[in-house]
Amino acid sequence: MNSHLQSLINWVQEQHLDIAYISNPTNINYFSGFYQEPEERVTALFVFPDQDPFLFTPALSIEAVKKAGWPYDVYGYLDHEDPFALIAEHIKERVAEPTSWGIEKDDLPVFRFEAIMKQFPSATFPADASRYIERAKLIKSPDEIALLEAAGREADQAFAAGFAALRTGITEQAVVAEINYTMMKAGVMNMSFDTIVQAGANAANPHGGPELNKIESGQMVLFDLGTVHKGYISDATRTVAFGPISDKQREIHQVCLEANLTAMDAARPGITAAELDKIARDIITKAGYGEYFNHRLGHGIGTSTHEFPSIMEGNDLVLEPGMCFSIEPGIYVPGFAGVRIEDCVHITPNGNEPFTHTTKELQTFSD
Amino acid sequence: MNSHLQSLINWVQEQHLDIAYISNPTNINYFSGFYQEPEERVTALFVFPDQDPFLFTPALSIEAVKKAGWPYDVYGYLDHEDPFALIAEHIKERVAEPTSWGIEKDDLPVFRFEAIMKQFPSATFPADASRYIERAKLIKSPDEIALLEAAGREADQAFAAGFAALRTGITEQAVVAEINYTMMKAGVMNMSFDTIVQAGANAANPHGGPELNKIESGQMVLFDLGTVHKGYISDATRTVAFGPISDKQREIHQVCLEANLTAMDAARPGITAAELDKIARDIITKAGYGEYFNHRLGHGIGTSTHEFPSIMEGNDLVLEPGMCFSIEPGIYVPGFAGVRIEDCVHITPNGNEPFTHTTKELQTFSD
Repeated sequence: MNSHLQSLINWVQEQHLDIAYISNPTNINYFSGFYQEPEERVTALFVFPDQDPFLFTPALSIEAVKKAGWPYDVYGYLDHEDPFALIAEHIKERVAEPTSWGIEKDDLPVFRFEAIMKQFPSATFPADASRYIERAKLIKSPDEIALLEAAGREADQAFAAGFAALRTGITEQAVVAEINYTMMKAGVMNMSFDTIVQAGANAANPHGGPELNKIESGQMVLFDLGTVHKGYISDATRTVAFGPISDKQREIHQVCLEANLTAMDAARPGITAAELDKIARDIITKAGYGEYFNHRLGHGIGTSTHEFPSIMEGNDLVLEPGMCFSIEPGIYVPGFAGVRIEDCVHITPNGNEPFTHTTKELQTFSD
Repeated sequence: MNSHLQSLINWVQEQHLDIAYISNPTNINYFSGFYQEPEERVTALFVFPDQDPFLFTPALSIEAVKKAGWPYDVYGYLDHEDPFALIAEHIKERVAEPTSWGIEKDDLPVFRFEAIMKQFPSATFPADASRYIERAKLIKSPDEIALLEAAGREADQAFAAGFAALRTGITEQAVVAEINYTMMKAGVMNMSFDTIVQAGANAANPHGGPELNKIESGQMVLFDLGTVHKGYISDATRTVAFGPISDKQREIHQVCLEANLTAMDAARPGITAAELDKIARDIITKAGYGEYFNHRLGHGIGTSTHEFPSIMEGNDLVLEPGMCFSIEPGIYVPGFAGVRIEDCVHITPNGNEPFTHTTKELQTFSD
């Protein structure tokens, strides 16, 4: 049995649960090695304190489950069948009346929660598997760090492809096309999220994306991208100049870079997530841009782009070796420009190591 | 006020609800015109029987909400703030104590459901907005059908790009790269799902995806793809021959094609979803491949790739003009080959019209 699954079963035993229901596709993959793209059909992993676990999937996924090497039972259902009636039958073959359930409260929708309660009217839900899983994933093993490093190398290649595509008049989306094409031709199976290329004032919209805007000389261009490498994620951001830029643009980049580098220097065992956020935030605030840095300094990374821990005010988690997260200060001046500079790092005994190595100093490109 | 939002408010009034909480990003977009990529932060739309609605989003999305033209209030929150405490404050400014709630049970996770109950201990949840929304979206307007047609034309272009990329030794994933690159360079912002190219026996895994397998002469190659056009989705599948194929491969394609064409002929007002499924399934079963067609005939399409109605056994919904769904029989022979042939159609007063027009007759490509 793989160590992730064994740890989950240990948790089920410690919590005195009769059953745990894992519903999030990324987490099902983490414990079972089988990944199903999210869709409306039901894919579920059920784990017991002293019985073998089983997977439940659409019938059309059975071949994929076997190919993934899952060694325990898997049951399929057809589209016209009631999945929770079948799930209940398979559970009752193992435990006649499970009352104490662990569920992923961050993931399980109310409809399926009610379906479980309908099949098992005496069910109680004392344990939130979401909280267990975020803790279980918090310290990455050397093998996991090696995969995150490989994903980071791919992100560095993706930056190079994006920078090479810059020219006057190309749209943001066409630059995205070049990046994704380069990576997929190189054998990358998925980008970890929709690649972001934003130029000029569009980059001041940190939750936006690429558009059909044409890139023009004198703009800064923000690239936020990553890949999935064997289930592990890279995520990094660089902001570069295209043609000559103004002193004000240069200043914003410089302040953001200083915030990034200072936080990179400070990230080490013993400091808290909140303290690290404050170190970067104070630099930006002191420079007069505090109101334009309207998100946390970073987020955990691993099998999901955003996972535990949040590097933010109020999080007193003390950093430890093996924790992996982003350091990504940003300054977004509406109508003018946006800069974000991001590496993901893993904490080491004496400091940290980034997964991406593309230079963060201001680079200038031109036709 | 747009008609989608007005209809939602009418439903809230008819159901005697104090409030409805829309949580699914695609549905928030459907009602508000603002789309937020799914992530762990909270984006929510709250609607009342006789007060203006409001959006609640991460602070970093406020600019994007304004850009989207949302005419009512929007409130942001910072990463370290408790979103549901803030949401409760904004709700209570409008309704002191909302007790009767409509929520999207297919979408809302238990954690957020419990957060609402914590803020509003007297809350009850008598109405499932998921059921309302699937019905509200069921009959597409002429404007929506025009968008689905535009998305379908893009899918036809994507097939052409994929067929043109076929050559001995190219990997499935490299063909995907060519398809996505062609579409994104042409200004398509997103594919509607991860483009699927599967050759030979890999196509017998209908829930799998492209791999790094090399395509060889003598294989059939399955393409399943689509685009997002202004929020509306295309989804279509073709299976072609690469080089000379065997009589058995040809037979599977022929049976699948007959099932597809017969169902396309039969899809018209008055027939039920279950009857349509059976028409295609009987052809495949009679030819001896019934066990290898292990999914429903089709799914609704619109602002999501899979929506209401399912074209399957047990669904006695009578088809009506304006309903839009896929017709996609498949035959998956493990270890040998897989064929699926899919168009999405809209029901017209006298029959149906497909959104995609790439020929479904067996096409053969070679180096």
